[in-house]
Amino acid sequence: MEQAPNVDTVRKLVTQYSNWGRWGDDDQVGTLNHVTPDDVVRAAGCIRSGKRISLALPFDASGPQTGGFGRFNPIHLMFRDGGDIISGTIVDDFYGGRDRHIRGTDDMIIMPLQSGTQWDSLSHILFENKMYNGYPAEHVTSKGATRNDIRQAADRTAGRGVLLDVARFKGVPALEAGYAISAEDLAGCADAQGVEVGRGDFVLVRTGQLEERRGNWGDYAGGPAPGLGFASIPWVAETEIAGLATDTWGMEVLPNETPDVFQPLHIVLLVGMGLYIGEIFDLQALAEDCADDGQYDFFFCAPPLPFSRAVGSPVNPIAVK
Amino acid sequence: MEQAPNVDTVRKLVTQYSNWGRWGDDDQVGTLNHVTPDDVVRAAGCIRSGKRISLALPFDASGPQTGGFGRFNPIHLMFRDGGDIISGTIVDDFYGGRDRHIRGTDDMIIMPLQSGTQWDSLSHILFENKMYNGYPAEHVTSKGATRNDIRQAADRTAGRGVLLDVARFKGVPALEAGYAISAEDLAGCADAQGVEVGRGDFVLVRTGQLEERRGNWGDYAGGPAPGLGFASIPWVAETEIAGLATDTWGMEVLPNETPDVFQPLHIVLLVGMGLYIGEIFDLQALAEDCADDGQYDFFFCAPPLPFSRAVGSPVNPIAVK
Amino acid sequence: MEQAPNVDTVRKLVTQYSNWGRWGDDDQVGTLNHVTPDDVVRAAGCIRSGKRISLALPFDASGPQTGGFGRFNPIHLMFRDGGDIISGTIVDDFYGGRDRHIRGTDDMIIMPLQSGTQWDSLSHILFENKMYNGYPAEHVTSKGATRNDIRQAADRTAGRGVLLDVARFKGVPALEAGYAISAEDLAGCADAQGVEVGRGDFVLVRTGQLEERRGNWGDYAGGPAPGLGFASIPWVAETEIAGLATDTWGMEVLPNETPDVFQPLHIVLLVGMGLYIGEIFDLQALAEDCADDGQYDFFFCAPPLPFSRAVGSPVNPIAVK
Amino acid sequence: MEQAPNVDTVRKLVTQYSNWGRWGDDDQVGTLNHVTPDDVVRAAGCIRSGKRISLALPFDASGPQTGGFGRFNPIHLMFRDGGDIISGTIVDDFYGGRDRHIRGTDDMIIMPLQSGTQWDSLSHILFENKMYNGYPAEHVTSKGATRNDIRQAADRTAGRGVLLDVARFKGVPALEAGYAISAEDLAGCADAQGVEVGRGDFVLVRTGQLEERRGNWGDYAGGPAPGLGFASIPWVAETEIAGLATDTWGMEVLPNETPDVFQPLHIVLLVGMGLYIGEIFDLQALAEDCADDGQYDFFFCAPPLPFSRAVGSPVNPIAVK
Repeated sequence: MEQAPNVDTVRKLVTQYSNWGRWGDDDQVGTLNHVTPDDVVRAAGCIRSGKRISLALPFDASGPQTGGFGRFNPIHLMFRDGGDIISGTIVDDFYGGRDRHIRGTDDMIIMPLQSGTQWDSLSHILFENKMYNGYPAEHVTSKGATRNDIRQAADRTAGRGVLLDVARFKGVPALEAGYAISAEDLAGCADAQGVEVGRGDFVLVRTGQLEERRGNWGDYAGGPAPGLGFASIPWVAETEIAGLATDTWGMEVLPNETPDVFQPLHIVLLVGMGLYIGEIFDLQALAEDCADDGQYDFFFCAPPLPFSRAVGSPVNPIAVK
Repeated sequence: MEQAPNVDTVRKLVTQYSNWGRWGDDDQVGTLNHVTPDDVVRAAGCIRSGKRISLALPFDASGPQTGGFGRFNPIHLMFRDGGDIISGTIVDDFYGGRDRHIRGTDDMIIMPLQSGTQWDSLSHILFENKMYNGYPAEHVTSKGATRNDIRQAADRTAGRGVLLDVARFKGVPALEAGYAISAEDLAGCADAQGVEVGRGDFVLVRTGQLEERRGNWGDYAGGPAPGLGFASIPWVAETEIAGLATDTWGMEVLPNETPDVFQPLHIVLLVGMGLYIGEIFDLQALAEDCADDGQYDFFFCAPPLPFSRAVGSPVNPIAVK
Repeated sequence: MEQAPNVDTVRKLVTQYSNWGRWGDDDQVGTLNHVTPDDVVRAAGCIRSGKRISLALPFDASGPQTGGFGRFNPIHLMFRDGGDIISGTIVDDFYGGRDRHIRGTDDMIIMPLQSGTQWDSLSHILFENKMYNGYPAEHVTSKGATRNDIRQAADRTAGRGVLLDVARFKGVPALEAGYAISAEDLAGCADAQGVEVGRGDFVLVRTGQLEERRGNWGDYAGGPAPGLGFASIPWVAETEIAGLATDTWGMEVLPNETPDVFQPLHIVLLVGMGLYIGEIFDLQALAEDCADDGQYDFFFCAPPLPFSRAVGSPVNPIAVK
Repeated sequence: MEQAPNVDTVRKLVTQYSNWGRWGDDDQVGTLNHVTPDDVVRAAGCIRSGKRISLALPFDASGPQTGGFGRFNPIHLMFRDGGDIISGTIVDDFYGGRDRHIRGTDDMIIMPLQSGTQWDSLSHILFENKMYNGYPAEHVTSKGATRNDIRQAADRTAGRGVLLDVARFKGVPALEAGYAISAEDLAGCADAQGVEVGRGDFVLVRTGQLEERRGNWGDYAGGPAPGLGFASIPWVAETEIAGLATDTWGMEVLPNETPDVFQPLHIVLLVGMGLYIGEIFDLQALAEDCADDGQYDFFFCAPPLPFSRAVGSPVNPIAVK
């Protein structure tokens, strides 16, 4: 990285770290292949105290979306509710006019799939008109993704999780926007925490930004943020981790390290490497717990909703310690 | 149950099996309280082979909803896709007119929260204008549920899971519609499988109906079905299970055992007991696996999406063995 | 109006100006009854130059909604588009795999019915749990309005229209927020314009506020605004107009003339009188045209979309001169 | 039309009847240009008895859509209703906790823009990757249509309307599915009705099919239907009508007269000629009225909602006689 990175840097890195074909020409889950059954069994060993911690923001109108890329916060609508019960109209409206004593309520949601705590699928990002494993853009039409959709990961995002609390490691409440996390930071943080990171792990990187912005989001979605920089790529590749999530909107450092390419690490990691990327993970409670008990690894279960042909999914990731 | 059950039967059972106040006047999660940290640790011991099995149906237009109660199958919409990439319009439409080499896709969903594999929250059902723990109907307005909403369970639906494959136990591909599963069936099935069911377990009851109807749903949603009958209630109460899910639309037998009350077990179990109920769980793959290896218990992780004030949530339940 | 108005003032005015029962106990369109076939024929006489002027704001994401009362700007989504055509995927996705040479595009909308230029139906406002003509609140359930819904007006909102350009009459670009328009203002404006207002007319009152705020809406939706005040009510009643619309969010002056009642004229006019009220009408082009040619009346055709059970409707009102 | 028509026939007809460039290279409204101010004034002369007739189907769940092309019937949702009023929760939920005596209700809609009575915009159909006036497919992206969108017609679809009641002319309740209406039929029907059709008219062709299918739609949407055939094209061109609507799903005869091209008249008329096409118009009441009074022309006002970048719009067309 002697000279300023540009699109050629990205091209080179995509090639260098490419996993295309590594798990077959028809693979659709990328680094999730790193997790073996044995890893899952070993991950169970991280369950020691029986704590279960949710890493999802609530999904509601107070979420972080401010309209970027057409995304909005979830719109929640009741279509059968207590008012219908109190007024008695529910009997006619829902129970055919005969009162059979039950009263139910029901609701619906309208939401961009990437409006809150979420997984990107491997069809979410393309580079030079191709997605992970070389599938061309024709595979994502108005009807959705016919390759690399989120359904592929329905049963794959469980295993060993590791929190890397980089903010705490650096002794700050939150890394500054624009701070590019390096391999050295990640390895140093793991060392300081006394935890090893290896093949098949799901790594959660805490920058502190979500906590800093919670409830007063401002430009959290799409604005300047700390996050992974080019210098973290070798670490991500060499550790052979299965997935990586942050408490930021976009995983990587913003502004990006090159003005020529937007979200270049998405290109290298998601398109090239086939890395599953999680965003807007709420790591506050987990980080406090890990600092308390000194245990930074856990059983991690973060199942996406298997929407057919979807390019992402909201998720409620659970850390079990 | 000497004489035909009616609404008074239901009233009596609600009272008899009520857990209102058992975990405090402000409790909002009911039987999920049965799970202790120790249970979670013990559940980890069920992870032996590292298999991960998803119990969710795909969420898409081919789902089982046919309009009952105003529910419809999920509507999935792309709002940034491969067509925009191929045509090149994405640069202007989403990237401000300057090509910075990344290409993204994005999508959204419109769906009733209970249109597929799902958890009912404890605000989903009321009886005589009250929900679990005595909260009145005023707590579910057009703005949603201010008590017993699904967010309460965000970090609670993980622990030991047990499959009771009642269809297999009875030697049939699927129980007949109208078959009322009894305590004897459940206990007998557990015995036959060589598995114990106890406090804090999540019990998954397989009737075989989902497999019978898959892709050709007919009246699966709301029509005749096998399911739990009145005679199962004591077993559910005495085992002190944390949650119960079936592969049917509505958990309990349909037609109901009394014409006077619709879904009476929802009233007794969900309203009275505060039982977390899962529906439309796809248990086929799990059942086959359990039959193969003879292991009917597993680590169960089925996190709802924490929609604020929602009365239910789609879920992708994961069984880890 | 000697002393400060309060809720009793409103109660008295509702009674005084009530049209409940005037057109039968089952009437559901209120003042739209003022329009007779002869009025429609006479209105045709206003068509002199053949100009057609739309009074609707565009319906899109740049609309005036900022979240008040849960309203948002329309969300427009393509589900078949040029990208599918260019990539060729449309043949498989929409035309069954066989190319029959046509290419279509398609789209959908998600919108609150009162998010832009709109009619209130007579089920939109209630007072003391009753709507126009005495129908109780039980007639508006989660399934919609079974009385006074917007469908009732499907063929009724056409006739003679009159613009009262009060801003121009007062010699200002826009009336100040908080300015309460009086009967004197309305009558004086009509006089100055040389136009008569009478039974069955649709009166459009221009305050100028929409033009002042266009594209930079701020608190246009729900914030301070000029509009009709208590002192306008007798004029509205005595003229026997069929409908009234303004270029503001809420027709009446804000802050309201009494702190005790929110939108009191909605109560008196819509609930009591059964007046059809239009809001967020874009009167700029019409006002300029009227000022140019001195003709302030026109044929008015503003058909709501007949959504069954809806309490309002977006509308594209047309003035034909 | 000696030999069986095929795609070359369509190509030839598109060229032969093309209006590309006729109203300038930047025209976006096609045949709506045929209406002059004088025509509008003359159309006013059709208003004789003061009758106003809506030509829209109700927009609701009972509409004709059965899923073809991803279209569904409108989903109407209340988000503030009488239940909230009766329970009193509305004060907290919507009025900030202070009772200011007003009670409001509110609702929203989710709908494909072409799910009911509707206008096609000139960006709805393309042929060989071009739409009317030669604009390429790149002008309809996931963000909508930047040429020929429905907003262009916001103030244009008013003028003289003429009903051609072809079913009545042929002496049948409804034309048979597959019947191709010819120029002879149209001219003969006009003659028999004693009405002239000419430049700038909006022509409504009644087949009777909607009435036959009302409430029991079956394959109305997309299935076999009577409608315009190739042999009607010269009449449509030579009369120089401004718009054409039918009471069928798709305006033209189905099955189409060539198996090679789906909806070939959409290509010739909409893409080539720039004709505004209306579909699913409910012509029953109008037809009965016209048969009664013998007056088949009227003032026609059918304003689309000006959705920005939309390729179609629901409409409530009004005939005023």
